[in-house]
Parts: sequence; C-alpha cells; structure tokens
Amino acid sequence: MLRTHNCGELGIKDVKSNVTLCGWAQKIRDKGKIIWIDLRDRYGITQLMFEEDSSDKNTFDIAKKCGREYVIKVSGEVSERISKNPNISTGDIEIKVSEMEYLNVSEVPPFTIEDETDGGEDLRMKYRYLDLRRSPLQKNIFLRHKLMSETRNYLNSQEFIEIETPVLIKSTPEGARDFIVPSRMNQGEYYALPQSPQTFKQLLMVSGYDKYYQLVKCFRDEDLRADRQPEFTQIDCEMSFVTREDVLKSFGKLINHLFNEVLKTDIGEIPIMQYDEAINSYGSDKPDLRFGMRFRDISSIVQGNGFKVFDDSEVILSIKVKGASSYSRKELDELTNFVKKPQIGSKGLVYIKCNEDGSFKSSVDKFYTQEILNDIANVNNAKKNDLILILAGEKSQTFSAMSSLRILMGDRLGLRDPNNFKPIWIVDFPMFSYDKESNDYHAMHHPFTSPISSDTKLLDSEPIKAKANAYDLVINGVEIGGGSIRIHQRILQEKVFKILGFSSKEANDQFGFLLNAFRYGTPPHGGIAFGFDRLCALFAGKESIRDFIAFPKNTSGRDTMIDSPSAIDEDQLKELGL
Amino acid sequence: MLRTHNCGELGIKDVKSNVTLCGWAQKIRDKGKIIWIDLRDRYGITQLMFEEDSSDKNTFDIAKKCGREYVIKVSGEVSERISKNPNISTGDIEIKVSEMEYLNVSEVPPFTIEDETDGGEDLRMKYRYLDLRRSPLQKNIFLRHKLMSETRNYLNSQEFIEIETPVLIKSTPEGARDFIVPSRMNQGEYYALPQSPQTFKQLLMVSGYDKYYQLVKCFRDEDLRADRQPEFTQIDCEMSFVTREDVLKSFGKLINHLFNEVLKTDIGEIPIMQYDEAINSYGSDKPDLRFGMRFRDISSIVQGNGFKVFDDSEVILSIKVKGASSYSRKELDELTNFVKKPQIGSKGLVYIKCNEDGSFKSSVDKFYTQEILNDIANVNNAKKNDLILILAGEKSQTFSAMSSLRILMGDRLGLRDPNNFKPIWIVDFPMFSYDKESNDYHAMHHPFTSPISSDTKLLDSEPIKAKANAYDLVINGVEIGGGSIRIHQRILQEKVFKILGFSSKEANDQFGFLLNAFRYGTPPHGGIAFGFDRLCALFAGKESIRDFIAFPKNTSGRDTMIDSPSAIDEDQLKELGL
Repeated sequence: MLRTHNCGELGIKDVKSNVTLCGWAQKIRDKGKIIWIDLRDRYGITQLMFEEDSSDKNTFDIAKKCGREYVIKVSGEVSERISKNPNISTGDIEIKVSEMEYLNVSEVPPFTIEDETDGGEDLRMKYRYLDLRRSPLQKNIFLRHKLMSETRNYLNSQEFIEIETPVLIKSTPEGARDFIVPSRMNQGEYYALPQSPQTFKQLLMVSGYDKYYQLVKCFRDEDLRADRQPEFTQIDCEMSFVTREDVLKSFGKLINHLFNEVLKTDIGEIPIMQYDEAINSYGSDKPDLRFGMRFRDISSIVQGNGFKVFDDSEVILSIKVKGASSYSRKELDELTNFVKKPQIGSKGLVYIKCNEDGSFKSSVDKFYTQEILNDIANVNNAKKNDLILILAGEKSQTFSAMSSLRILMGDRLGLRDPNNFKPIWIVDFPMFSYDKESNDYHAMHHPFTSPISSDTKLLDSEPIKAKANAYDLVINGVEIGGGSIRIHQRILQEKVFKILGFSSKEANDQFGFLLNAFRYGTPPHGGIAFGFDRLCALFAGKESIRDFIAFPKNTSGRDTMIDSPSAIDEDQLKELGL
Repeated sequence: MLRTHNCGELGIKDVKSNVTLCGWAQKIRDKGKIIWIDLRDRYGITQLMFEEDSSDKNTFDIAKKCGREYVIKVSGEVSERISKNPNISTGDIEIKVSEMEYLNVSEVPPFTIEDETDGGEDLRMKYRYLDLRRSPLQKNIFLRHKLMSETRNYLNSQEFIEIETPVLIKSTPEGARDFIVPSRMNQGEYYALPQSPQTFKQLLMVSGYDKYYQLVKCFRDEDLRADRQPEFTQIDCEMSFVTREDVLKSFGKLINHLFNEVLKTDIGEIPIMQYDEAINSYGSDKPDLRFGMRFRDISSIVQGNGFKVFDDSEVILSIKVKGASSYSRKELDELTNFVKKPQIGSKGLVYIKCNEDGSFKSSVDKFYTQEILNDIANVNNAKKNDLILILAGEKSQTFSAMSSLRILMGDRLGLRDPNNFKPIWIVDFPMFSYDKESNDYHAMHHPFTSPISSDTKLLDSEPIKAKANAYDLVINGVEIGGGSIRIHQRILQEKVFKILGFSSKEANDQFGFLLNAFRYGTPPHGGIAFGFDRLCALFAGKESIRDFIAFPKNTSGRDTMIDSPSAIDEDQLKELGL
C-alpha cells in the first residue's frame, strides 16, 4: 500500500510514530509561516501541519501550492495537538509532515465537498462521483452495505441459501411495464428484465431448495417519482412447508435482527393487523402507527339532525387532535383548504373545539346541540383543549381524505419522529380489486397468491369477497415488504388466472412452465420480498431512496453522468434487426 | 412449519420421539404387507415404514397409492432400523408412520430424479426445475452459495464494501457486443447492459470508497460455448492507493481463504510468472502447472544438419513425456494425426525414444547422430524410457500446437487431477496486440489498464513493446480472474485511447464522464475481476459452467423452460417506437 495508515485511525497512542498517509486535501489553512491541511479519506480526517522553519523547504512549497481535492501522499511524525478537536476520532493528533507528494492534482470542483454543499441537484447528479465524496452520501452507502451484509448474515444463519435467478427472462403483459432486450440470435424475439424473480423462486421451491433468498436487482419501466427508480433492489425470499405464521415469524426476526445490529434498537415483536381494521381505523393499508388519531365513525350520532351535508353522506369520520383546540381561524382555514385540494377531494372540514370550561365550539353549532357534540367528543375520547376534525362524503374518498389529514396533523404535531419505528404486519387483504368500467378483476397482490383456505370456495361464487393469504410489512406508513402464501395446485392457479381474465391460451403462453411445474409435486410454499432501497432510506430516517443508490437515474430515467440512454450505432441496430 | 424436523437430521438419539416430516417420495418399495418410502428433502433422506398390521388402515392405503415425487406429510415414531444404511446420515433410523397426507400429487416425471438420470440434456433443460431436484445439481448450487458467502465474509472482514452499480448503462462499441434496452421515455435511445462495472468501480475510487467489491451479473451478446453464458457473475473488486503487489497479495489471500473454507485445502502462496515465460515454457498465458513438460527450444542443436524441415523452421520445440518410450507405432501415429488436425496445424511430429540401454530411437534417425539425440535428451532432462516429442514450424503456430500437445499428453498420463490445484499469477502482459491487416492496436486487457511505469515512454515510440501493469490468476490452465493497475491520469488515458484508434470525439462521447472525473483528484487505483461461474466449476472439478447456474441458457441463448426470448405484443413495441 502507498500508505502505512488510513486517515481515521491515528490517535494519542501513535505519537512519535513515523507514518505515511494518502488522501484528499479537504481544507487548507495557510497562515503564512504555517500551513494546515485536513487530509480526508473514507476512514476519517487527519490534520497535517507544515512549518516553514522546520519543514524541508521543498515540502513546504508543495504544501503551499496544494489545492482543494488534490490527492496527496505525506510522510511525517505523529504529534499531539495543542488545540484538540473532540469531534473527530483523530482530533488529538496531527502529522508534522516531512515529505509530501501530489499523487494527482484537481481542478476546482463544481461544488463544495462538504456536508452542506452549494451544488444543486442537477449538478450533483452530473458529477455524482464528486457528490459521492460527501460524508452524508458515504454514510448512506455504508449503511446500505451494513444492511446488506446483516441481511445475508441472518438468512445464512437460518439455512437460507442465496440463489441467483436470471436477468434475461420473458416478458409478461400482466402488471407493470417490462424493459425488453432484443435478441440478436433469435431475431424478432425479446427477453425482458425481471420485475421480480417471483416465478423463479417458486420453481426453486418445486426443486426442493426449501429456503431461498436473493438480494436482487429488479426493473420496472414506469413513470418515475422520488421514491421510484427503473432499477431497484429487493430482498427476495421464499420457504416451503410453511403457513403464514411461519413466514411472519421468520421475517419478523430478520427485521428485528437488522434493527438490533444496525441501529441498536429493539423494536420488539411485530404486531399483526387485519386489512379491514387498517382501512377502518386509519384509511390506509399502510398506517403510520407512530401516533394515534384513529378514525371514529360518527354517522349514527350526527345523521338525521337536519344538517344536509352529513345527512347526504355515505360516511362521517372524525379524528381527535390532542391539545389543538387553540387552533386559530387561519389555521383551520388552512386545513380546510388542504382537504379541498383536488387530490384530496373533500367538500369541506368540520371542527369541534373542546373548550377549557367543558363546552364545545363547532363550525356546525347551529345544527348540533352541546349534547351531541359531547357524544362526538366521547366517542373520540376527547378531553378539554382537544380538537376534533370531521370529514364526510362518499366512503372511499372520505377514508382516503381523512388518512391524508391524519398524516398532516401528525406532521404538524411533530408525532412522526423518523427515529421512532412502529412496524406492523397487515394481513387478510382482499384477493381482488374490481374495476367497474372494464368489468375486470385485478390481483391485489399478484396472480400467484392463494386465498385463505376458508375462502377458496368464494372464488366460484363471489371472488370479490375472497381474502388473500397475503401480508405486508409496514413501518411508519411505508410499505417495506409484502408477500403471500402461494398457490401450489395447478387447478386453483388456473381458476385464479381465469378470474383475472386470462384465456387458457394466454395463461399457458405466459405461465405454462409454472402450470407444468405444478404437475410434478409442488410443495406448499410462501414468501416475501422487501424493497431494499426503501429499507435503507427508512433506517436513515429519509424518504427519498435516491441518495441510497450509488448511481441512480433521474426522474426521466436518465443517468446524466454517463449520458444514458443514448443513441447507438446503426450497425448495432441492424444486427438486431431493428 | 408443517414439519417438526427435516429429512436429514434424525438419528439414534431421536428413537421413540414422535415427529412430523414433509418431503418428496423418492423411492417406494411395496412388499405387500410392508411398504418403505424414502422421503427426500434438501437436507437428506429418511426412511418411512408402513406395516399393514400396525398402521392405521387408512394410512396404509394412502402409502400404497403414493407415487414417485408425491409431496407428503407423515407423522410417526422414530425407531431403530434392523438393517442400517451407513451411507446416509439418517441411516440408523426409520419412521414408523401413523399418519400420512398427500400435500400434492405428481405425474410421473419425464426423467428419473436420481444421481444418474435417464434424461437427455434438452429434456432436462426444459424441466430444469426437476433436474434441479437431483443431488449433483443441488450440490453445485450449495457450493455456489458457500463460495459466494465466503467471498463476502472475507472481503467484509478486510473492510471492502459491496456497492451495487447500475444494470441499465450506456452502450460502448469497444469490446464484445452489448445487449441493449430501448428506452420508452427517451425514444430512439437505448440503455446497454454492462459487460462489467469497470468504469463505475473506477468512479467509486474517484469518490474515495477505497475498497470496493460486488458480486455482479454481467452480460455479453456473444456466440455461446459450453463455458460461456450471455449472463454471468463476476466477483468485481477495486482498491485505491495500491501497487500491483498489494493487489496480488490481497486477492491471493481471498483465493486462499476460499480453498481453506470451502475445500479444506491449503494451496499456499500463489507464485508469479512473467507472461513471456508462460508463453516460452508452456505456449500459453494460461499454463496448466499440475504437470511439467516445459518446452525446450532445440533449434540451435538441430538446425544446419541437412534436415530441411527443421532447417526451414522458425522454431523447433521439444517436450519430454516421462516413461512413454514404450509408445507403439499406432499411438505415435495418433499423436501425429492430432497435431496435423486443421485447428492445430502442424505438418508432422518428430519423436525420440530414450531406450532402456541408453541408445535413442528417433523418427529422424537418418539426419541426426546418437550424440545429437543425446544432446536433445539432455536439454530435456530425459532419462531412459522417456519419450521426446518435437514440433517445428512458424513460431506462434508451433508454440500453440505444442501447448495443445502438452495438454493432451497431460491428460493421457493422468496428470490433470481435478482435485489438485496449481494456481499462478501471470504478470507483465503486453499492453497491445497489433492487427496487421487493419493496422489496428487492440488492448490486451482493456483500455483503462496502465503500462508498467518504466514503459510509459514506449507509448510514444513503440507501443507494441510496452508491457501492461496487468495480471491474470490462472488455476489448472483456466483463467479465473484478471485485472490491472488502472490509468488515473487524464493525459495518459487520452493517449491510450488515441493508440487504440479513438478519435478525440469518440473518446469523449463514450468515456467523457471518466476523462472528466480524472480532472478532480483521482487516486492511483487497481483491481481485479473473477469469473464466479468458472470458479464454482473449478472448485467442483468440472469444466462446464452451466450446471453451476440455477437457470442457464442453452447455446442458442434460449431458456427453453420459460421459452425465452419470445415474441412480444405489438402494443409494447409501439410504445417503444420500434
């Protein structure tokens, strides 16, 4: 190695040692007769000191001309600092440099390589290799590595084996859009990149591998958002001879392991909630449980009192906002404007303030007596100084709107601490959603999900009522993983394909290999997949996944650093028959 | 779990326990009043026993109707076997089954699920999920997992961090053919799948990650052979502030670790050989060192004696084959026919037998005296009963032909034991090869490889003479890995691009991001990539990589199981503008 030590390891114990370090000149302070340089590498920062009097003249001159981000190699003696820096691990010492060499020079970077940089998003994407030098990004990439290795450590210890599945697979029109790859050797034919290794992991269960996992890249050609990337990473897992409880227990332990090892946090056993309860209480199958504000349906209390808005509503929902009765007119107007935004879609907001003196002040005072307001307060378990917010309207819109309002109030009251983790398993999802316009059933999870066994018969009579043996792991309102007990019988799989509108021919063209595999002794099996990029962001208390991926794409699916996608040679296209 | 134990863990200690097992009916022996079933899962085989007298009537009937590869669940008591089977871990016991249930039935598989199967290659590829049930394939997949986890364990322990690089990157016409991916959001533009993460790992060094690795899928759209697949896996590594010696030492230790942990074999420190010596002594930069037979150039001994064939040859090479003087006329004719095959291309083979009595018998007796034959024997260190084989002709053809002959003789003499491992680092490759016809220089390694520093000036005068700071790891004649110390200065990189025939515009269009990165403090760095599929095959003593990949493609690049590549929807093509 060109160095004897890295920039993060020297301390008071090393004083008087002669060392050689390599790294980047992070900060240069030239005081005339004395120069300090902060030397940075992945491991830390070490202060270098050059004195005009004691340094070799040549060395001092080299230091004098050193620029920001120059790559340098220095040798010298470790000495105790006069003014120590308790914020860094090497803060007790500095190097009295006797020799210095530029390993490479640097132009002035287009933005500062500091925790708080002056570079805008686009500039930093173009120079990603410089942005990746910044400590916040390095921390993210190290966190990702740690989560990756702890995931593997744990699953390996549980006899899971990692098996790579192919990247060049077959396109299936079902689900999201595939990226496709033209075949040169089979012209007019295409591979597709996998949206998930779902069918392959099921085949591995058919093959008897019993416990499989893979940290695997998956691909979706979708329009992008901050938390979506065309390529993303999954922790993909499958087990044989298991029930739902076995899967939740096994992977609950994985998640516990990750929190223990990476964040030194014990999140305890992960509770289970029915899908119906999640919707009824929080208006979402991804409830954020860091705070309460459960929905209370007050339809039976308020309807029939002559307030037409409520009387005409399918549902009337309320939440209690603790200690918020002091909200001003202006603040309440803001909330009203929020729920009236087109993407929320409510017609208005009703409030009840629980006054200090036990009386109530409401925006619908003229329709409701203090007794009725008191009843609403009781249902919400509201005490004096609390605020009750009420939305009414069509059922699904109102649940969804109230969910958004609940999250907003959680934010306003500071109840969504990113370092507080509240995981929940959501279970018993519906098998299908139904699209009235097209008269189509869609799989809520995916077409390979089994119904809970008591609901199998509903597939023939009322598929919409059938519950799936599926489960999601939700942490702090974010879906971190999802899976199901799979169908392992050919007849049942064919029935589900039929409900989903596949003709027999389509089912066989696309999934014939799986249906065939089911002929040869397929074990009961189930599994789960975790969104690894999101898991990384969650562990760091962040929302966007982009800064947890070394080289992400922008929202147009472009890598502006390498300028990709790009035009390609005519010859290349010709060879592919395009 | 549906089971209390797996099929590989019960033994004499468990006798009298009540257990529940799940698995596949591997073998069924129905002796009328008594039935045995071998129950198989990933962990082993456990014998089940059903007695007409003692078993529940219903259970006995279910066992009676059980077919090969049925998935079953049984409960019963562990009991000591009368006739034990020492070949399996559970051979001391069997289960007296009291309850049995089919979890799934199976049609008769298209081939037998046994170590030696009756299924042909094509059939097994189509039903890969059944082939993967066979023990030899399961062993390969487990070996792969073990190698993968030990690679990660070792590199993690050495402070390497795994960083995922993108799969959707940019096409570069240099090198092998890319697979391309049409972009929907940027029509007329294409991503390419990476042939290696080369430039990204270099950028990670620019970013200061210091020690990077990744087990990563790479892609090449080449015509296929038994040991090539369109998608393959690399152990990809890079380090900063290193010399060649540091890289060889670091990754020599990785390879040692893998042999120690996975095969319990100590291969010792890996020796280093110059490229020139490898070519001169073995005619190959991938020498198989499990045996000797070094080439001896005997031109100076034999030329000028009137044997026109030798006198007109550029080079005359000999090898000694120990104890083979008894080779018959027929055997020698076979060897002659071998070297005359078009792909070998020699005009003939000359031999010298070292007789028991100290005399020599040669196919060129009339041109050479016993003294000259004795000189040749001496140069080859040949003793009585040895055979000397001689090839002559144009230089590069003769070295290559002798290399093939040497390997053939190694095989014939049983010197190529797949369980004997002889690794070697080959170093000091030429930077470039030169194509006379097109007047083009090609990079022997890749365009990012630096020359050894003393040869940098040759780039201006005689590039063909410059040696690269590159290295290959060769084990038993197979190239397992290769790498180099990279160029880290923009000026030098531009010079190399120019020698390779890139115009300034081409260099910037394709690698502008890298050339730009070199402006901002790029550290000296180097690395290596190992062919992981080949490493797996090598560890198992096999040559073909296909059976070390769960779902490989055939030699036409097809996955016949899922029938891919395949035609896709017109709508899909239209959306992509194809």
